[in-house]
Amino acid sequence: MKENPPRIRVGIVGGTGYTGVELLRLLARHPLTEIACITSRGEAGTRVDHLFPSLRGAVDLEFIAPDAAPLDRCDVVFFATPHGVAMRQARALLDAGVKVIDLAADFRLRDPAVFESWYGMPHADPELLSQAVYGLPELDRERVRSARLVGLPGCYPTSVQLGLAPLLELERARPGSIDCETIIADAKSGVSGAGRKGEIDYLAAEVSENFRAYGLAGHRHHPEIVQQLSAIAGRRVGLSFVPHLVPMIRGIFSTLYVRLGAARFPDLQDLYQRRYADEPFIDVLAPGQAPDTRSVRGTNAVRIALVQSLPGLATILVVEDNLVKGAAGQAVQCLNLMFGLSETAGLDALAVVP
Amino acid sequence: MKENPPRIRVGIVGGTGYTGVELLRLLARHPLTEIACITSRGEAGTRVDHLFPSLRGAVDLEFIAPDAAPLDRCDVVFFATPHGVAMRQARALLDAGVKVIDLAADFRLRDPAVFESWYGMPHADPELLSQAVYGLPELDRERVRSARLVGLPGCYPTSVQLGLAPLLELERARPGSIDCETIIADAKSGVSGAGRKGEIDYLAAEVSENFRAYGLAGHRHHPEIVQQLSAIAGRRVGLSFVPHLVPMIRGIFSTLYVRLGAARFPDLQDLYQRRYADEPFIDVLAPGQAPDTRSVRGTNAVRIALVQSLPGLATILVVEDNLVKGAAGQAVQCLNLMFGLSETAGLDALAVVP
Amino acid sequence: MKENPPRIRVGIVGGTGYTGVELLRLLARHPLTEIACITSRGEAGTRVDHLFPSLRGAVDLEFIAPDAAPLDRCDVVFFATPHGVAMRQARALLDAGVKVIDLAADFRLRDPAVFESWYGMPHADPELLSQAVYGLPELDRERVRSARLVGLPGCYPTSVQLGLAPLLELERARPGSIDCETIIADAKSGVSGAGRKGEIDYLAAEVSENFRAYGLAGHRHHPEIVQQLSAIAGRRVGLSFVPHLVPMIRGIFSTLYVRLGAARFPDLQDLYQRRYADEPFIDVLAPGQAPDTRSVRGTNAVRIALVQSLPGLATILVVEDNLVKGAAGQAVQCLNLMFGLSETAGLDALAVVP
Amino acid sequence: MKENPPRIRVGIVGGTGYTGVELLRLLARHPLTEIACITSRGEAGTRVDHLFPSLRGAVDLEFIAPDAAPLDRCDVVFFATPHGVAMRQARALLDAGVKVIDLAADFRLRDPAVFESWYGMPHADPELLSQAVYGLPELDRERVRSARLVGLPGCYPTSVQLGLAPLLELERARPGSIDCETIIADAKSGVSGAGRKGEIDYLAAEVSENFRAYGLAGHRHHPEIVQQLSAIAGRRVGLSFVPHLVPMIRGIFSTLYVRLGAARFPDLQDLYQRRYADEPFIDVLAPGQAPDTRSVRGTNAVRIALVQSLPGLATILVVEDNLVKGAAGQAVQCLNLMFGLSETAGLDALAVVP
Repeated sequence: MKENPPRIRVGIVGGTGYTGVELLRLLARHPLTEIACITSRGEAGTRVDHLFPSLRGAVDLEFIAPDAAPLDRCDVVFFATPHGVAMRQARALLDAGVKVIDLAADFRLRDPAVFESWYGMPHADPELLSQAVYGLPELDRERVRSARLVGLPGCYPTSVQLGLAPLLELERARPGSIDCETIIADAKSGVSGAGRKGEIDYLAAEVSENFRAYGLAGHRHHPEIVQQLSAIAGRRVGLSFVPHLVPMIRGIFSTLYVRLGAARFPDLQDLYQRRYADEPFIDVLAPGQAPDTRSVRGTNAVRIALVQSLPGLATILVVEDNLVKGAAGQAVQCLNLMFGLSETAGLDALAVVP
Repeated sequence: MKENPPRIRVGIVGGTGYTGVELLRLLARHPLTEIACITSRGEAGTRVDHLFPSLRGAVDLEFIAPDAAPLDRCDVVFFATPHGVAMRQARALLDAGVKVIDLAADFRLRDPAVFESWYGMPHADPELLSQAVYGLPELDRERVRSARLVGLPGCYPTSVQLGLAPLLELERARPGSIDCETIIADAKSGVSGAGRKGEIDYLAAEVSENFRAYGLAGHRHHPEIVQQLSAIAGRRVGLSFVPHLVPMIRGIFSTLYVRLGAARFPDLQDLYQRRYADEPFIDVLAPGQAPDTRSVRGTNAVRIALVQSLPGLATILVVEDNLVKGAAGQAVQCLNLMFGLSETAGLDALAVVP
Repeated sequence: MKENPPRIRVGIVGGTGYTGVELLRLLARHPLTEIACITSRGEAGTRVDHLFPSLRGAVDLEFIAPDAAPLDRCDVVFFATPHGVAMRQARALLDAGVKVIDLAADFRLRDPAVFESWYGMPHADPELLSQAVYGLPELDRERVRSARLVGLPGCYPTSVQLGLAPLLELERARPGSIDCETIIADAKSGVSGAGRKGEIDYLAAEVSENFRAYGLAGHRHHPEIVQQLSAIAGRRVGLSFVPHLVPMIRGIFSTLYVRLGAARFPDLQDLYQRRYADEPFIDVLAPGQAPDTRSVRGTNAVRIALVQSLPGLATILVVEDNLVKGAAGQAVQCLNLMFGLSETAGLDALAVVP
Repeated sequence: MKENPPRIRVGIVGGTGYTGVELLRLLARHPLTEIACITSRGEAGTRVDHLFPSLRGAVDLEFIAPDAAPLDRCDVVFFATPHGVAMRQARALLDAGVKVIDLAADFRLRDPAVFESWYGMPHADPELLSQAVYGLPELDRERVRSARLVGLPGCYPTSVQLGLAPLLELERARPGSIDCETIIADAKSGVSGAGRKGEIDYLAAEVSENFRAYGLAGHRHHPEIVQQLSAIAGRRVGLSFVPHLVPMIRGIFSTLYVRLGAARFPDLQDLYQRRYADEPFIDVLAPGQAPDTRSVRGTNAVRIALVQSLPGLATILVVEDNLVKGAAGQAVQCLNLMFGLSETAGLDALAVVP
């Protein structure tokens, strides 16, 4: 491999959470990147593989304090931080010529007022919002390619958008194709989506052998999904989004219900297969096959099945790994595009089954 | 307790499955019943507590071969058998004055042709169908009280009917209240619903850390639910029923979506609370509370929450234990009614949490 | 039940943890007790069944602030608190004629210096230690009967002591029967033993699909077990205690290895069966049967199997539910004895299997 | 990669079990192998990725009937079959110049009489036993390199041997270093070790939330482990082997206890670190660190920790993935050695955590 160009230098801010360790796992085996530094306020000085022994022999780094990290000498910096960090630091990095990919919510919502109302803080850099690209390559690959600042979608929004895009694009082209007023997203997620925080609600003793809904008073991903679905459809979409917690670690399963409006509706299976024919990470299953979350665990794949559970109703089943396609994998996919690499570089691992 | 009347003598046919052992657990602590005999073709001669050590000290019986069992000397016989057994044996027992409660599907569907098409065998005793009472006490307690033959609802149908009954009864009284054409039941079940059979699909290595949909080509509970919902509403109901498998042992969580038709719709919370005010096993949660399956695990309780996830859409969340209210507990509840006992006798255990 | 004496009034200090809710579950269905009050500093004013919906309809109480609780008007007070609380409050209650049962570690260790070195605080009332009775009825029922202050054993110590007592008593009677220098307790526990605290190590995403050892630098139950084993044997015992964390909620499985010293050793199976013949909660399995934790889940039972895995080596397998016989159930068992009730009152529920 | 030599052509017999699909996962991403064919009697004609959707896009093969498979044109054939298949087919393949690696037990035991007594069938080709190499590279790499026929160790035996080898080698060099009469292996395994067979004992409803011992009457891995440990030590070893079933899919955790004999015993930590210093897959943890199974899940790594839980007793903790280092990964490691490839080729994936 001696003829290879220099590897892309990656910095990670906030590497002790689940998206952080997932980035480390992917980047440690990426053929064209190099992890330059990883920051953590609380774990500065700790070896990364002490906190995450699964990385022993693969990541030979210590966490360093944010202020001491040479982030401005990276080619790209990932923010795997709580919401509200990237929006304060992105501008300085961009000014230094460093590209920025935020895995938190700072650059997802177009409207700073919506951000403030859902995340409980004013947006620190509203001007940057207009430059930020929403990092869902399957929906706008070219903008991601040329982006300097990417706000990655949330995990639920990724699965819901990919599951609905073909229908919404059809609606945009032929208004009245679907009922946009009452789209239902019955979503189920593994517990890693709640992050690596000491909260009683996510203890094993609370989560195991239990299934529950949550976020009934309103979930932060709701305005994000509505914003994006409406953008695709070209009109305001009404969405019922009910998230549930599954007693497992990884995986999102979204069951989507859309009422069909047109008398002569195109074949759903065909619609989806054509739409995603060239997408390396989107796999439309054959009729009759049902997706399961384990088939995408640890991978960047999304699997979609179309079901006719009732005449006049499209039922779309979508699976993804919330930490990969829903977070760190999508981040690497965006990096690949932003630096002209193969879109699938470092993302070819297969799910460990069983 | 010397003044008590003689205990009700119960026979169990097919006691080696999960509904069988659950019946044993409940009946072994029921204050007014006595387990007279329990049959198993495959385990005849085996002590019950050898197969189920959790019953050591509580059930001092051996399984006996079906032919050797003195079922006709019981007061009531439960069939915890595969589908197709009870319909062959019920008549003889009824003729002998024994009441019969079938936990399988033999007496759920009114139309023998529907039974045959879904269960792959002709109904052996169609005439009995007209005598059979559908054993869901909350919907028709008086008929259960006087029944000699009860066909117990399936586990999913119990949760879906209890979750929709107040709305469907409203529809019957005031047609147009809801959209009956497109009712959605997004249902999630623990794996014990698949029974105690050696099938690869339900191995721990297949089920754990995985979430999937199944039965997409049609689930046997679909015609049963449609039959019952239509009966309640007084008109044909269109139902999308999508069952999913949760990596846990017990529990069903049904998320139900109903479009509201009326401009001035009554308060949902109030509607449900009034409907179920006197029901000992139905618990309508306060607004904002979400149910979880563990709060009903091992118990006969059903918890229901009402959510307004989108204007014009009623979202109803229902939890039950599929082996208790969805099977053995409901069987005991029916027994209590059929023999004039307190409806809650033997059904007052609390869920083991965590 | 009109002829019944007044129910025993129970107070619970610190009711928001897992031993607290388990006490509530047991006491709510105990025929002879009444929950008079339950305290919580953090949840004062919250309804108990709001925090624990599984208790809806069964516990009609609010948490009250510790200072406002009429504990001195109870007959008995349980401390389901962190270590270090009961030792400060027990004396006042005892002086008021209230019996005290501590589920924490304050009254387990005889030597206040040992307590201080393992729990990181001086003992607040060393004098009381000499009055405290170690609450393991199977080993000293008479002292429990007459106790006013009971220090309940830890969860691991309960299983290890019950598994070894017959051999240690034999050693006491016939020194040299076993090798007391190298007793091995390879212990495995479900995660509820870690309590209801927001700690990252016990998140579902950390615990599920994982098995690990912990406490290798020394576990607080080690000195307690050694103290008790030595007391039974009448000589200092050497113990290797290696605890492991199992990805499940409830249950302790202790695998105990003891080298046999005597040439003509009595039959192990017979030794254990005779020792525990009259014990209502100890179940010695038949040769060849292996215990499993689920058969005791939610119950006060302990199951023991004897295995000859190598000549000259006794292998003893012990299962218990860490929150019942390892905590709240044992507390109720002690209460029953201290108040002259049937020892099994309120403790007859069967395990929910599967 | 155009200058690469032709890929090694691999055939797999019996590819529908868990070791089969794991071989597929590893080989599909191995840079120097090619899956030539995969057989299954029951699934002949089915696409591999229909049975295992996780392989969609990665394995473009159908299962073919054993008789139709061009196994003799492969460079190497893996048997991922039930016990008793490879011993009947190996000779013909060897005669055709094909190397054979058996993942079942046919070539593990030196003595055909021992094989017969534990596996219930006479050995079909005892003569081959003397040519078979026991495929544990860390213990005899050179013999594996030159082997034509490899019998891979069982999953438990791999972990126990690697955990004990340094001590047993010491015993061989300096007899009396350890007590060889009473070695204890308290082993815990995830459920995938039981295979992909429809057995009630391994249903999710039986395994979840449960911990149990099994195989108490004797486990097939016991004679294999004793054979190998004795070979290493140069003397007969007495082993207590108690396997337990953990409610998780993958992973073996062996807790090993060895009494130390010598007064002046070498430092254990140092002994193990030196022994395994050059091993790419064996990772001796620093003192105080405890291994967990998830850190090796999906990988070929073994992690070992040394603990002094009692003076004079060595406690060794060993983790591996039973399907990788305990089966398919070790098979690939042996293939790499037998064909002169880098020993770690195709085995560098990192564990997916959490």
